[in-house]
Formats: sequence, structure tokens, C-alpha cells
Amino acid sequence: MTSATTDDVVDYDPAAFEGLRFHTAVRAFHDGTDSPREYLERCLATISEREPVVRAWVVLNVPTAREQADASTRRWRRGEPLSPVDGMPIGIKDLLETRDMPTQMGCAAFSGNFPKRDNAAVWALRQAGAVVLGKTVTTELGGPEPSLTTNPFNPRHTPGGSSSGSGAAVGARMVPATIATQTGGSLMRPASFNGNWGLKPSQGAINRGERQTASMTSHGVLAACPEDMWLVAMAIASRAGGDPGQPALSGPATPPAARRPGTLAVMETDGWERLDDVSRGAFEQVLAQLESNGVTVLRRSQDAVVERFERALRGVSDLGSGILAWEHYWAFRDVVADNPDGVSARGKRFFIEAAEKLGAAGYEEALRDRAAVKSAHALLGPRVDAVIAPTSSGSAPVWLGDAPGRPPARWPTGDPAFNFPSSLLGAPAVNVPLMAADGLPFGLQIMGQPGTDAKVTAIARWLGEALTPVSV
Amino acid sequence: MTSATTDDVVDYDPAAFEGLRFHTAVRAFHDGTDSPREYLERCLATISEREPVVRAWVVLNVPTAREQADASTRRWRRGEPLSPVDGMPIGIKDLLETRDMPTQMGCAAFSGNFPKRDNAAVWALRQAGAVVLGKTVTTELGGPEPSLTTNPFNPRHTPGGSSSGSGAAVGARMVPATIATQTGGSLMRPASFNGNWGLKPSQGAINRGERQTASMTSHGVLAACPEDMWLVAMAIASRAGGDPGQPALSGPATPPAARRPGTLAVMETDGWERLDDVSRGAFEQVLAQLESNGVTVLRRSQDAVVERFERALRGVSDLGSGILAWEHYWAFRDVVADNPDGVSARGKRFFIEAAEKLGAAGYEEALRDRAAVKSAHALLGPRVDAVIAPTSSGSAPVWLGDAPGRPPARWPTGDPAFNFPSSLLGAPAVNVPLMAADGLPFGLQIMGQPGTDAKVTAIARWLGEALTPVSV
Repeated sequence: MTSATTDDVVDYDPAAFEGLRFHTAVRAFHDGTDSPREYLERCLATISEREPVVRAWVVLNVPTAREQADASTRRWRRGEPLSPVDGMPIGIKDLLETRDMPTQMGCAAFSGNFPKRDNAAVWALRQAGAVVLGKTVTTELGGPEPSLTTNPFNPRHTPGGSSSGSGAAVGARMVPATIATQTGGSLMRPASFNGNWGLKPSQGAINRGERQTASMTSHGVLAACPEDMWLVAMAIASRAGGDPGQPALSGPATPPAARRPGTLAVMETDGWERLDDVSRGAFEQVLAQLESNGVTVLRRSQDAVVERFERALRGVSDLGSGILAWEHYWAFRDVVADNPDGVSARGKRFFIEAAEKLGAAGYEEALRDRAAVKSAHALLGPRVDAVIAPTSSGSAPVWLGDAPGRPPARWPTGDPAFNFPSSLLGAPAVNVPLMAADGLPFGLQIMGQPGTDAKVTAIARWLGEALTPVSV
Repeated sequence: MTSATTDDVVDYDPAAFEGLRFHTAVRAFHDGTDSPREYLERCLATISEREPVVRAWVVLNVPTAREQADASTRRWRRGEPLSPVDGMPIGIKDLLETRDMPTQMGCAAFSGNFPKRDNAAVWALRQAGAVVLGKTVTTELGGPEPSLTTNPFNPRHTPGGSSSGSGAAVGARMVPATIATQTGGSLMRPASFNGNWGLKPSQGAINRGERQTASMTSHGVLAACPEDMWLVAMAIASRAGGDPGQPALSGPATPPAARRPGTLAVMETDGWERLDDVSRGAFEQVLAQLESNGVTVLRRSQDAVVERFERALRGVSDLGSGILAWEHYWAFRDVVADNPDGVSARGKRFFIEAAEKLGAAGYEEALRDRAAVKSAHALLGPRVDAVIAPTSSGSAPVWLGDAPGRPPARWPTGDPAFNFPSSLLGAPAVNVPLMAADGLPFGLQIMGQPGTDAKVTAIARWLGEALTPVSV
């Protein structure tokens, strides 16, 4: 971050940064000193100011949002809010269908696509009184081809992907929360790069509605604080339930109280060797603080079960990318055939070529590999409260486009090695915005056994409250 | 069947009835004495003759079908067919998306709905060279509200539902095979009522493409013979795979050879007491033939594990209907809200009122009930080769509309009690058109443990070959 000198560069300090909270605002909605409509107008003012550079939104539906905020204002004044998130302005990743806005998926082939239906999560949020303000930018089809969104702390850097707009909008204080999705690292990495709290729930814990066509995609929530993150997730899950056949997100209606873990296992993955020394140093400072707070930190060198888990994780990005590509093949192949210029070369390579290379037999073998990774993770269940790891290999890298004369970058929105494990395992993970590297956010994650979303959130909250943020 | 006197009434005799086969025709495609185009024209002639009364089709795409058949003709002449079903004219249930035909789901609210995409199964069939001739009629949204399709053996009787057109088109010899779907009894009951062979595969064994939003829906195949049934299923599964995260239908590329079972357990369900004496007599004749062929037939009165399974099945139609309703609630609630007159009163009651009555907690309890039924079924695994049961409570009932002055019928397309078990269990089931009652088809089913689709097909084939059809 040496050459950026514009006004749009903000030196991020995790100890000082205050995101936009909602749960702290509702008392004033009750007593009339503030209102959802005024809250929305403040969000719109921030959007007006920041959006020309951040570019987090595909579309805003301001007139409808104002109507929804006015209706919410009346409910709070009557003392009859529909839920704790009644009146919350929220952004929806543009992969999810919304009845009042197009769903273009960041892909030229879906330009103008406008199925007038609400995704289950969007339907639930409307039932809960939330203000569905707009669609946030996704990378093309949720894949590696980057969007135009920039990192809100420095526009030369990527906001991460695929939930680029959802992460950046929260990081830029445009809205208190957004809906994101993850198949590889599409929710957690943007959370890390934009200083968000982020919940990637257990597989199936939040009903994905029409988006059921992959075995390891989750809807999740990005927010400025753990309280709003949890309240949004529960507002959805308590109304739309889990995926068909799956139990819904379980836990308390109010945010789980902070809970100090007894033992955490460190997860390194293939990403460990790609962590620069400065970022690794920040993470080690967090681990040292944990130990001085009485938490046992288990490393692979000390424990055979942790080491077994790490060995099972080898090559996890390739395994996950292959499963992902195959499961999208039947749908995307026709899209590409009909619109040869409507999908990027990087997107075609990621989705189509990878699927054809894998084949049906390769996919079934990949499912068996995934089952083996799950078994190795399950063995950790009785030994540790959760796993801790960096959420990304450092803070957001610079992204100014592919370098001329060099092969296209494989992961322009950042390395997914720290993110694929929670996706493959169907495990809940929470990003804690506790670190900074080179003046940009750098998150750490707590990952638990499937179904332990509330416990993982409670541990993550404890880290956020008990530890001192680290800037390197 | 005493009062029907029109030319459209055919006295069905399972020993004499010959459906329209495809696998026996391909030799003549090779040597040029026949061709896929001529085969298609014969299908179109039958459709012209029967369709005014049977009403099995929503839309036919004849020009495209002729082009596809001509292309297939050239491939067979060159000796280079794409698959064993290259050139097979096939009907697609109108719940599945097709890029060249609308997808209206038998529902006024979806009138004109035309997403220009192919469902995974349709995509796979085109890859295999099949001729996608048209969309077959479904009951409204696959629910209980009947369509205008009539039973091809007597138009006063229902063809069953929800795959009404798929069943009737095969029964009327319009096409050799159709794609159907089942959530409750939507594939198996039409198979029974229309004299089809029918495969309802293991849950997840055939990729449902965009239709992943229910935990117990399967795509399956209706055909005039077990060979074509299996070849179509494998043509799809080998190209589009299973549902995301699930292994694809497994078994041989060619139809599994007939296999005599050692032991079959009789499944009665709540439907047993609603079987009339004549139909029950036909089924008992089949059981007697099995025993005289050396097959051990295990009844609930003789075996505690079978009895335990039957007890777990009590109330299975209500359990299944509740799960089904809840899983469609988030999507259908908005459809009904936007189109109050676009969904029938019966449909609203089945999908919306049932879901609201169940609620989120009721749904999770129902999932636990379903898990208990699966456990009771799994206990049968080591004891019996498969389960045998009637596929319906007799042959197709008369359906001429709700009786004036009486409450609307709950199950106008037939009682689903014999069909919900395979849906809830995720178990493969095959309908064998081996019986007739009152001059109309009446099927029996073989149901196995999940994943044993090929074994179930082999046993069903053996029944078809070894036993004498029964008419009562």
C-alpha cells in the first residue's frame, strides 16, 4: 500500500474501526429519536459518497426501500416490530432471485435476467420487516472472474470474491449487513478482506431456495458486528428453515453470549506456506494472546489427529474446485453454448474445462475424497472446541487486472486455500475482523463441527471481546 | 367400467397388451428397413388419433422433433448412434424446464412461463440423441388438482397423477418412454393405472437439475418395457450424473438381466384396508405364483421386523404430504399471493394450508419421523431381497370431477398410500404391469434398499418374465 495516495485510501485499524451497527439503533426507533427511514437515508448518503469508487451495487431499489422503511418506522413507533431486524437495510448478493430487481449474476449471458421471484432468504427477510435495498455485486457466476468492485479501504486492492459487493458494502459502512454465499471461499474471504464479521453456516442450515444445485453452497451473512450477523441469520432460518430435508440453523433467538474455548486446533492448509511472514506474525500474536488467556492451542506438530486432518486437507482447493465445476456443468454448458462471448475465458476454464477434465467418474471419486476429509475432521470433534485459522493468506492483494503478456491469474480475488475446508466439510465458520496487515483488514476464522453454528459464534465473539486487535 | 361404451374404451389385458417398444426397433435403423424419422411419424400418427380424448400433451414441438429424428436417422445409417436411445421420441413432464418449449406446470399462475433452459435430464437426453418431442401434462404444480388428461383405456377414469400425461402417453402407445417425477406417488401411481413399466430411482440417483427444492423428489422413467426404461435412465444418469453430492444411478449400461429373488416381504401400508376384495385377490394370486416359483413371501403376521416396518409406515401419507407442503411453502406462498386465482382451491389447501398447519417445528419433527421410517426399512435389508406391494389401491378410479354438494375429493388422482413409502425412504421402486382389475391396468411394485436400483429392476424383470399376468 505504498503507491496509493487518493482520498479513497483508509488506513484500517481493527482496534479503531467502527462498522455500521443496527441492533444498537433500535432503542431510538422505539422512543422516536430515530427511525428506520432516517437510518436508511444515512445509508443512502454513505452510498452516494462511496459508491463511485467502491462499486458494491448492481442495482438499488430506493423507492421501494423508502416505502419499506416508512412501514417499519410505523411498526417500531407502535411497538410492534416484526423482528429484531425490522427496518434493517440489507443488500442481497446478485446470485439470489429478487422479485423486484433483476438477477444478473455478474455475467453478460444473464444480462437483463429478471425472474420475478424471491429467493427463500429474501422472502424470509421481507417477512421479518427488513428493507431489501439492492443487489450487491458478485463475480461472474460466483466464479473467479473479478467484478469492478474495489476494496473499500484501498481501491487498488480486491474486495475478495465472489461476494465482492456484499463484503465491500459492509466494509464501506453502506449497510449494516448483506447476504453472501459461499461454495469455495466466496463469503469468508470477502469477510476477511473487508473487515466484516461473517457467518458461513453449516451446510443446509439456511434454506437456499432456488439455489440448491450444488452440494456445498451456503447462504450466509456479512455484518459489522456479531450481534447483527446472528440476528439476520436467525431471522431467515426461523422463517424459511433449512434446505429441504435439513434441520434449520439452531441456536438462541438472541446472539449467543461470548464463550471462552478450552482448546482450539490450528488449521494450516496448503495456504500456510503462502502466508507472508508479516501476516503469519499477526496470526501468531493472536495465538499467543489465546494461550495467555488460558486457551490450549493445539498445533499439528503436537497432535497426531490434527496432523491427520492436515494431511487430509492437502490439495483441498483442487478437490473443491472440481466438485464445484462438475455440479455446475449441466447448467453452464448450455449458457456458454448459447452465449460464447457471454462468459469470460477465466469463467469457462473454471466451470467448463474443469468439469470436462474431471468427468463423471472423477466426480464420484472426488465425493469419496470429500468424505475422507469429513471423517478426518470429525475425529477432531471430541478433542477440540473448534479450529482456528487465518481466513485468507494475508490481507487483500492488489488487483489491477491481468498482467499483459502473462497467463491470466487463477485466483484474482485471492487464494481460497483457507476457505475450501469449511465448504467441503459443511462446517460452520465465523470470520473475526481482529487483524490488519499493511493497513488492510485480515481476518481469522473459527470453524466447528457441522451443526455447532451457535457455539462457533459464541467462541468467535469471545475472541472479539477478549483479545487485543493486532496490526502489523 | 359398465357404463362406458365409446370407442375409446379398451379392455386391458396384461397378457395381450403390447406397448410401444424402442430397443427392438434399432436393428432396422441399422439396416435401413426403418428409421428414427419413420418411427417418429408413427408416433405422431398415434398421437393424432388418440390425443383428442387422452389429452396427454401440453405442447408438441414437431418441426424440431423431425429435425432431430432426421439427424438420428443419419447417425444410425452411419453406424454411429450417440447411445441406445438415439432417435427415441420422448415426452418430458411439464414440471421440467425445456429450452424450446414453455414450462407451465399445469398451473394458471405459470401460464406462458418459458425459461429457455434445459433441465439436466433433458440436456442429457439431447446429448444421447433422443428426440425431445413434447411436454406431457402434469397435474397443477404436481399436486392433487387433476388435469384434463384421461385414462387411455377408459376416459371416464383418471390416468393418475401427477405425471398424468407421461403415464397416459406411454399407455396410449404414443411414445415408447416419458420422463416423470415423484414426490408422493406421482410416478408410480400413473405407471400402475396406465400399464407402464416405471422406475422411481433411489433419491438423488438422477440429477434433477433446477428441481432440487424438495428432499424427496425423484426424476424417473415410464416406458412400455423394462429394457427401454433402464436404457433411458442410464442415458441420463451417465451424462448428467446424480443430484449434487450424490452418486449417480449405478448398474450395467445394458438392462439388468432378470433375477429370481429368494425372499420378498409384503408391504401393506394404510392402503391395504382400502384395497377392494377383487384387487386384493389379484395381488394374492401373484403372491401364490411367487411361492410356487420357490420365492419365500414374508408377511407381517410372520415376521416381527416386517411388522415393525408396517407400524412405522402408519400415517405415511400425512407425513409425506406435510414434508412436501412445507418444502414448497416459501416458493408457492408468493405464487398464490401474486395470483390468488392462479392456483386451485385444492392446490392451496394441499400446499399452503398444510404447510402453515405444520410450521417449522412440525417440519423438523416430521424429518425425525421420516428418519424412523428409514431405520425400520433398513432393518429389512439383510432379511429380504426386496419388498413387494400393490402399486395402487386397485385400478384407476372413475374421475368426472368433484361431486356437486359434497366436499372436494382429497385424492382425485388416486390414493397415494402405496406410493409414499418409496418417496419417504428414498428407495428405488419399479412398477410391473402384471395385473388388471375391471379391465384396467393395476400394477405391482418391487421396492429395494436405497442404491439397489439395478437389483430391483432385475427382480421386477423376472416377475414380468416368469409370472402369468392376472386379470380379475
